[in-house]
Amino acid sequence: MTQDTLNVDVVIIGAGPAGLMAGTWMAQTGVNTIIIDKKPYRTQFGHADGIESRTFEILDSFGLGENVWKIANRTIDLSIWNDRELGGIQREALLNNCNPGLSHFQEATLGQGEIEQNFLDFIESSNSVSVKWNTCPIDLMLCKASDHPVKLDIETRTSETEFIHSTICAKYLIGCDGARSWVRATLGLDLEGDRMNEHWGVVDSIPLTDFPDIRKRCIIKAKAGHLMIIPRERRLVRCYVQLSPEVATAFRTKVDPGILVNIIRSILSPYSFEASSVEWSTVYSVGQRLCTSLSKYSRVFLAGDAIHTHSPKAGQGMNVSIQDTYNLGWKLASVIKGKAKSMILRTYQDERLLVAMRLIAFDKRMVEVICRKDPDLSMKGRLPIKNSLKDTLREENTSASGLEVHYKPSCLISRTWESKTRRLASPMLPHSRSELAGNLAVGARFHDAQVLFQCDSRPCNLQHVLRSTGEWHLLVFGGDILCSAQMERVRRLGVELSQEGSLVNKPDPNHDDRVGRIGIYLIHCTPRKNVEIIGLPEIFRPFDETTGYDYWRVFADNEPYGEGLGDACRLYGIGTEGCMVLVRPDQHVAFIGALEDLSAIKLFLGNFMTGL
Amino acid sequence: MTQDTLNVDVVIIGAGPAGLMAGTWMAQTGVNTIIIDKKPYRTQFGHADGIESRTFEILDSFGLGENVWKIANRTIDLSIWNDRELGGIQREALLNNCNPGLSHFQEATLGQGEIEQNFLDFIESSNSVSVKWNTCPIDLMLCKASDHPVKLDIETRTSETEFIHSTICAKYLIGCDGARSWVRATLGLDLEGDRMNEHWGVVDSIPLTDFPDIRKRCIIKAKAGHLMIIPRERRLVRCYVQLSPEVATAFRTKVDPGILVNIIRSILSPYSFEASSVEWSTVYSVGQRLCTSLSKYSRVFLAGDAIHTHSPKAGQGMNVSIQDTYNLGWKLASVIKGKAKSMILRTYQDERLLVAMRLIAFDKRMVEVICRKDPDLSMKGRLPIKNSLKDTLREENTSASGLEVHYKPSCLISRTWESKTRRLASPMLPHSRSELAGNLAVGARFHDAQVLFQCDSRPCNLQHVLRSTGEWHLLVFGGDILCSAQMERVRRLGVELSQEGSLVNKPDPNHDDRVGRIGIYLIHCTPRKNVEIIGLPEIFRPFDETTGYDYWRVFADNEPYGEGLGDACRLYGIGTEGCMVLVRPDQHVAFIGALEDLSAIKLFLGNFMTGL
Repeated sequence: MTQDTLNVDVVIIGAGPAGLMAGTWMAQTGVNTIIIDKKPYRTQFGHADGIESRTFEILDSFGLGENVWKIANRTIDLSIWNDRELGGIQREALLNNCNPGLSHFQEATLGQGEIEQNFLDFIESSNSVSVKWNTCPIDLMLCKASDHPVKLDIETRTSETEFIHSTICAKYLIGCDGARSWVRATLGLDLEGDRMNEHWGVVDSIPLTDFPDIRKRCIIKAKAGHLMIIPRERRLVRCYVQLSPEVATAFRTKVDPGILVNIIRSILSPYSFEASSVEWSTVYSVGQRLCTSLSKYSRVFLAGDAIHTHSPKAGQGMNVSIQDTYNLGWKLASVIKGKAKSMILRTYQDERLLVAMRLIAFDKRMVEVICRKDPDLSMKGRLPIKNSLKDTLREENTSASGLEVHYKPSCLISRTWESKTRRLASPMLPHSRSELAGNLAVGARFHDAQVLFQCDSRPCNLQHVLRSTGEWHLLVFGGDILCSAQMERVRRLGVELSQEGSLVNKPDPNHDDRVGRIGIYLIHCTPRKNVEIIGLPEIFRPFDETTGYDYWRVFADNEPYGEGLGDACRLYGIGTEGCMVLVRPDQHVAFIGALEDLSAIKLFLGNFMTGL
Repeated sequence: MTQDTLNVDVVIIGAGPAGLMAGTWMAQTGVNTIIIDKKPYRTQFGHADGIESRTFEILDSFGLGENVWKIANRTIDLSIWNDRELGGIQREALLNNCNPGLSHFQEATLGQGEIEQNFLDFIESSNSVSVKWNTCPIDLMLCKASDHPVKLDIETRTSETEFIHSTICAKYLIGCDGARSWVRATLGLDLEGDRMNEHWGVVDSIPLTDFPDIRKRCIIKAKAGHLMIIPRERRLVRCYVQLSPEVATAFRTKVDPGILVNIIRSILSPYSFEASSVEWSTVYSVGQRLCTSLSKYSRVFLAGDAIHTHSPKAGQGMNVSIQDTYNLGWKLASVIKGKAKSMILRTYQDERLLVAMRLIAFDKRMVEVICRKDPDLSMKGRLPIKNSLKDTLREENTSASGLEVHYKPSCLISRTWESKTRRLASPMLPHSRSELAGNLAVGARFHDAQVLFQCDSRPCNLQHVLRSTGEWHLLVFGGDILCSAQMERVRRLGVELSQEGSLVNKPDPNHDDRVGRIGIYLIHCTPRKNVEIIGLPEIFRPFDETTGYDYWRVFADNEPYGEGLGDACRLYGIGTEGCMVLVRPDQHVAFIGALEDLSAIKLFLGNFMTGL
């Protein structure tokens, strides 16, 4: 029997958050892609529900952030409860569960299905990506010589008993098929690490309770057991409750959420607790396991739970999974479109393995501080909560939030002169002068700040300029251009950027494909009333015969409404002499140089980009 | 020939901003309504384009604000230009064109068609309101005795030569059919006032120009003529240019926007100006005219341009039109649903005529300061701009923005003890104790402020609580409830509110109709960590057997994240002893009383509400 064969650029196995994030990149960049999933439709209830601020930023860079932010539930308060000597429980501390300075988004909760729906809506509005439900992978072959080296046999269920077999030939495959990944197994890889002996039950319900902190995130350590409360969208609340092996087995046999509700009630006693409208419940056993190979031949990639499994304690899983393929997607699109050499694909392994290792280590600490009963605490009663719990929770809202992921030097991240590890990058490649932006770190995600459009004083978040389109962003911090010497430096840079053979592709309004291009923006710190946009080099306000000048590439780092200076440059540690910051398509800082360092940037980009 | 007859509650003639705002109220409250319009579809290009902050607040109260805000263009800067002695023009001043303290929205611009589309989307998602295009009114009869006293014959065009006639029988009619209103003429009413002899041309285009302020709102008074520039959504810019009667006639004959572009170019000289993609152009003559009768028998109402025509100089028209029917809609719905006596309909005339008169007077001043050449200015060259222009512009951003519309005492607005005009309200009705909220004015729109949800510390704008649903809002400012005497006052109020026969309709989750109900909210100013929501009277956290407690009716007037107090109470001038503020369904303050004044509120409401 001959089988249908479909040629695509990318095949993605698994339409969960990691797979759909990868699909979203492919939809955004117009890369011909198919996503298969054995499920008949997206996640309806339950599963992951924590969204970190970095994930919101990523969604926002595709225009999906506000929608999700609007329906998600912000968990601002974190309440710690423990035993009372006379029985019952008492509130021990009420902490902030957020870190407002780090992002314009904050941690929030929303069922995984809603996130998936937002990705699916985005994907469906494109014409390059399709999703095939009810479809399993059957066989995978890699023939290195071919232009489409990935050959994947699949089986699509069309009814209870009928299946259709077909073959997908692809340039690349991304395995986002979860903790029991078929792709990982087929590649002969495995998760390493231990299964621990902790069992937890999960219930999503609308609670009927007089427990006063039910709309706050809670960690409750009572004699009757340990409980975590996660308030959610609508009136839902998720409860995680620690179970004995016997109770876990009982639940798995009966699948009766009443078993979990009874334990929750006894932990919360003397407060009342009933679960109305139980939407989802399950039992899981905690284990932290890791696959240290994230790709094979840079043709097959693994992402998400396929490479890291852990407890849901800190709501990290969906975030790191989305961030995995957010890292991979633009690299694949750039290579597929011939804009970058395939060497950049190797950075996926280096950049994301370190994140996965940190995730596993962090989750171990988190489980430790939440599950273990502290002996001091139970003996002395009203002790302040242990520093280890506080520290771990603080870590969750900073480095573990994804905001402080810091990629190491590679072909895509320049080394800095201060850098002590000179192993990864070639010594011939230019170095960043990171002292010019003392508070920006090369390799870290570009921190958001508000500036004003020079043309009309509207406020603009710089991160909104860094949309995820596959384009790189060259932010020219011009400094104080009222100073004529400084203006002369900006002018000279403008001339260099405008020259034939410059790294800037001339804007072409009929050509929407921005993959591999470099967008140029000027941010100055002169009071905006003293700057005439038309007096600036034309590269910063390019002219088009149909649409006129592009007025939206020049920003004043000023206070809105007033005359005073803004605080973007102060935030970034950039002085009046300015600098250039080159930002990758995934918002990570790749290079920092002086206004005269255009040739260094060209050398850096020329190493991996084609046609420069 | 027998004609089809349709019975509806409300017929609206004209599907422009005023008519669609009325339709939006009817859709929101589920009132059976038909809107007819002679056009085949909504406005596509041009026409009104200014949106004041109050209009954004109104759109937002139906959930439409953010959509429109996102695509609208904020006009933050206002640039004044005049002649240069040596020829050409020069910038004389750069002013702020906004007033950030007054609203969380600001003035912005967007083509009228987009606003209409947002209303239409809202209306289409309801099942009580339909829009019939290509349809003109033919004959109107009023038979007072009938339950449906309005009998309207209409004609619907089905092809170039074919028409269908039918009859609509309605309880109420709203004439939103513009400056040449058929409804107004049929009622035998007319606009009063003079046509002035000023002619202006309007062009919406994408300009190709090196004029540096093209993305700012500009007023340019040059020897070659007067020009106003209004930057718009996308890359559009609107130009208003003053014309001689001869040029106005020439344009009307040829309908050639090139005539207008030539004059704009000569005014802007020595800057270049070309219009790419002219989207719309027209010529109008300025006139300020007013119809002083806004309704007939409280059965037929006029709104929008049908009662006030004026120049578009200050971008007021669409705003006042929307605000007209925003005032009328909830009153009609309340009467139609039997929740209020029809006497409340008379307040439409009283409340909106004063606004219309103020609008006409303001527009006269605006035209005066913009059109007239100031002799001092042209003689002395670089004089500061005249105070009259500055003052008028400042007025535009305060009282003229709709934010400071202040309705006089009536059955729907209580008198205050300070009030000197005792004519309108009955002396038997209770008075407001406005000194308890020194910065709130009875009759004015309730100013927005941020508070925090007690249950989870999420920030919430109080104006978002006051959604337009037809429900009244009783905001109980509980003061410092850590003080036991104060808590006792709140408790006693809770008991009174909970009693059988209280003015509060018990919440009924199966009954979505909120018209004529009173929603109760508690805002306290105690640090939120010291308050347990479960310890508060249940009326402020009502319990439902399916959905549990309603946790979203209690707010802490606190700073986010910190322990400090918030500034809502300070903003409203409310002290630690608290007060009650009763807010109408259109967000205007109706009554201010002490926590003991529930019987006064009941008396006030009982005067016009049924079933209290």
